[in-house]
Amino acid sequence: MASVGRVTPQQMHFAEPLPLQSGARLAGYTLVYETYGKMNADRRNAVLVCHALNASHHVAGLDADGQPGWWDNLVGPGKPLDTTRFFVIGVNNPGSCFGSTGPMHPDPATGQPYGADFPVVTVEDWVDAQARLLDRLGIDQLAAVLGGSLGGMQALAWTLRYPQRVRHCIAVATAPNLTAQNIAFNEVARRAIVTDPDFHGGHFYRHGVVPARGLRVARMLGHITYLSDDSMEAKFGRRLRDDALAYTTQDIEFQIESYLRHQGEKFAGYFDANTYLLITRALDYFDPARAHGGDLAAAFAPARASFLLVSFTTDWRFAPARSREIVKALVDNRHRVSYAEIDAPHGHDAFLLDDARYHEVMRAYFGNVARECGASLAPAGGAGGAA
Amino acid sequence: MASVGRVTPQQMHFAEPLPLQSGARLAGYTLVYETYGKMNADRRNAVLVCHALNASHHVAGLDADGQPGWWDNLVGPGKPLDTTRFFVIGVNNPGSCFGSTGPMHPDPATGQPYGADFPVVTVEDWVDAQARLLDRLGIDQLAAVLGGSLGGMQALAWTLRYPQRVRHCIAVATAPNLTAQNIAFNEVARRAIVTDPDFHGGHFYRHGVVPARGLRVARMLGHITYLSDDSMEAKFGRRLRDDALAYTTQDIEFQIESYLRHQGEKFAGYFDANTYLLITRALDYFDPARAHGGDLAAAFAPARASFLLVSFTTDWRFAPARSREIVKALVDNRHRVSYAEIDAPHGHDAFLLDDARYHEVMRAYFGNVARECGASLAPAGGAGGAA
Repeated sequence: MASVGRVTPQQMHFAEPLPLQSGARLAGYTLVYETYGKMNADRRNAVLVCHALNASHHVAGLDADGQPGWWDNLVGPGKPLDTTRFFVIGVNNPGSCFGSTGPMHPDPATGQPYGADFPVVTVEDWVDAQARLLDRLGIDQLAAVLGGSLGGMQALAWTLRYPQRVRHCIAVATAPNLTAQNIAFNEVARRAIVTDPDFHGGHFYRHGVVPARGLRVARMLGHITYLSDDSMEAKFGRRLRDDALAYTTQDIEFQIESYLRHQGEKFAGYFDANTYLLITRALDYFDPARAHGGDLAAAFAPARASFLLVSFTTDWRFAPARSREIVKALVDNRHRVSYAEIDAPHGHDAFLLDDARYHEVMRAYFGNVARECGASLAPAGGAGGAA
Repeated sequence: MASVGRVTPQQMHFAEPLPLQSGARLAGYTLVYETYGKMNADRRNAVLVCHALNASHHVAGLDADGQPGWWDNLVGPGKPLDTTRFFVIGVNNPGSCFGSTGPMHPDPATGQPYGADFPVVTVEDWVDAQARLLDRLGIDQLAAVLGGSLGGMQALAWTLRYPQRVRHCIAVATAPNLTAQNIAFNEVARRAIVTDPDFHGGHFYRHGVVPARGLRVARMLGHITYLSDDSMEAKFGRRLRDDALAYTTQDIEFQIESYLRHQGEKFAGYFDANTYLLITRALDYFDPARAHGGDLAAAFAPARASFLLVSFTTDWRFAPARSREIVKALVDNRHRVSYAEIDAPHGHDAFLLDDARYHEVMRAYFGNVARECGASLAPAGGAGGAA
């Protein structure tokens, strides 16, 4: 299938500080974003795609380095989220490390990189930042907001924070909050980073180092939780790297070790340690039911959107049972909700993969969204568009 | 129920080097062990208890510091493994850090602590070392060998390595080998330790430091895998440490974080980093089917023991399905095998806990073992006995 082709990220600066859930404010900041497809004349065909931990505004097409977007198999001309019908926006969240203002950028108060002083940002803060971007783009209402994992949490938060601005919410492989076990994994990763002597309390930039040891361990651990036990077994099993056992405690013996070390090494080469802390904390904090004494149905009462929830059978990080909690809360409110539980072997990572049944569900749902907003008509001008 | 009371560990030195699976040899070494109960005149009532990662020879009773043994709820007078009927032996494996020769002891070749040069030891090597101890104690044949987790692997290995010397094998919460996911968790923990600058390539003793950061992370991660998702949720859930959110990435926000950090801190204060590497590697390497092209039934053909396998429904580290693989291999050989799958909420840790149904199974099985070896008769003298 066709790609949206070469895309160039755009930037938008916001001089007005962003008030945050913590009570702090993020000073003037810049968001980096990409768009694909064209806005219709009535501006009703916009779809916002929210990213998860290790992703960015680069959702589809090829960037300047020729790298495909992280959801390129889903988003493009003729793809389930069809850019010949929709105007699709990918935006990098503040606190991330892919271009939008983050801990590696100068704190206007000091002129030095924010480092550990970058304010703690939440899913709701990101949604607020995204809403401001839509204001600037002249989009009053989204045809749909879409995300997987932490991105799914943002999609859900949109329907509660800006109920009138979202017609459809598509939340994939997500949860109404993290379990104790989820938080525990995040905490182990954070401790690995924070206790790396090269972390320097989060101000490593001025020392010309990065806490690579901690980032490697964090990523290795993360990878285990993204994959299912079965898919790891199928892909690596107990296969040795070499023909015979070497009897070593520090060198690589099994292929799975080699794979994890490689993933850790790659990640430590580009990901920011403070961003890792911020984003895992945003995951920990997300919990729309908290303000309602744990009553998720009460939390979802304000929503006006229609919903599609998708989960994957072997996802033990955000298990189907967690998606079903959301479905139940929506049904309790008589909100419109569709739910697909996809039998897929790949664990949490399945939401990024090109599974036929999963993509058929997405295609059918977006087909309905397109018909509803007249997006199957020929597009007619609109703001920006990088395709 | 009564305890075996105060126990004093004993030591046995072995001047003859131990040939290892790797081809290397462990030079003269010392084993620390405890015994409970009395050997019968016919020496047929001995039960060997094998320990897992973070345990020792101190299985039952109270040590000099008044600390109870790690399986004190199971082993004692009137307990499921009844020390009024059996002569029970707990032995610390070489490479461990609780008294037997390990990486913190002097390498006779250099006079300096072995450190990372301590030879890689396997489950089979430990069984060989245990067999030599039994030789010295004058025990030709064990009434039973018992272990949980990595200890269960040793119990299984006994039946293959010394088929004539084991009448019963009780293997709890164990597996015929580690899965790729199990190995992956071990590898993350090892990398955390090895990349801690205070590890000094495994020779930290001479620097007067310990790689505490790495050990903490390793232990925190281990703890997650010992508990079930459900029991963590029940015990900690999303409860905050304080009343309100503090919005912090480095300080403790949730109770689960506080618990894990505490566990990590405690562990780093007493456990040896090289031992952690050695023992997790022994786990990785155990795989009796490997020499038989993956055919576990072929691997168990030499066994002559009767078996009891026990697993726990919520144990995702060594899931019931793994125990069933062993049961199938035993049945395929027409070996005598009993199997209990205990519905318990506590995950892998359940094997250490006092679950009524679990302990009833153990009590019933050991009752049969006792009757079979005449151990219900009054004991009559025998070697040692610390009770």
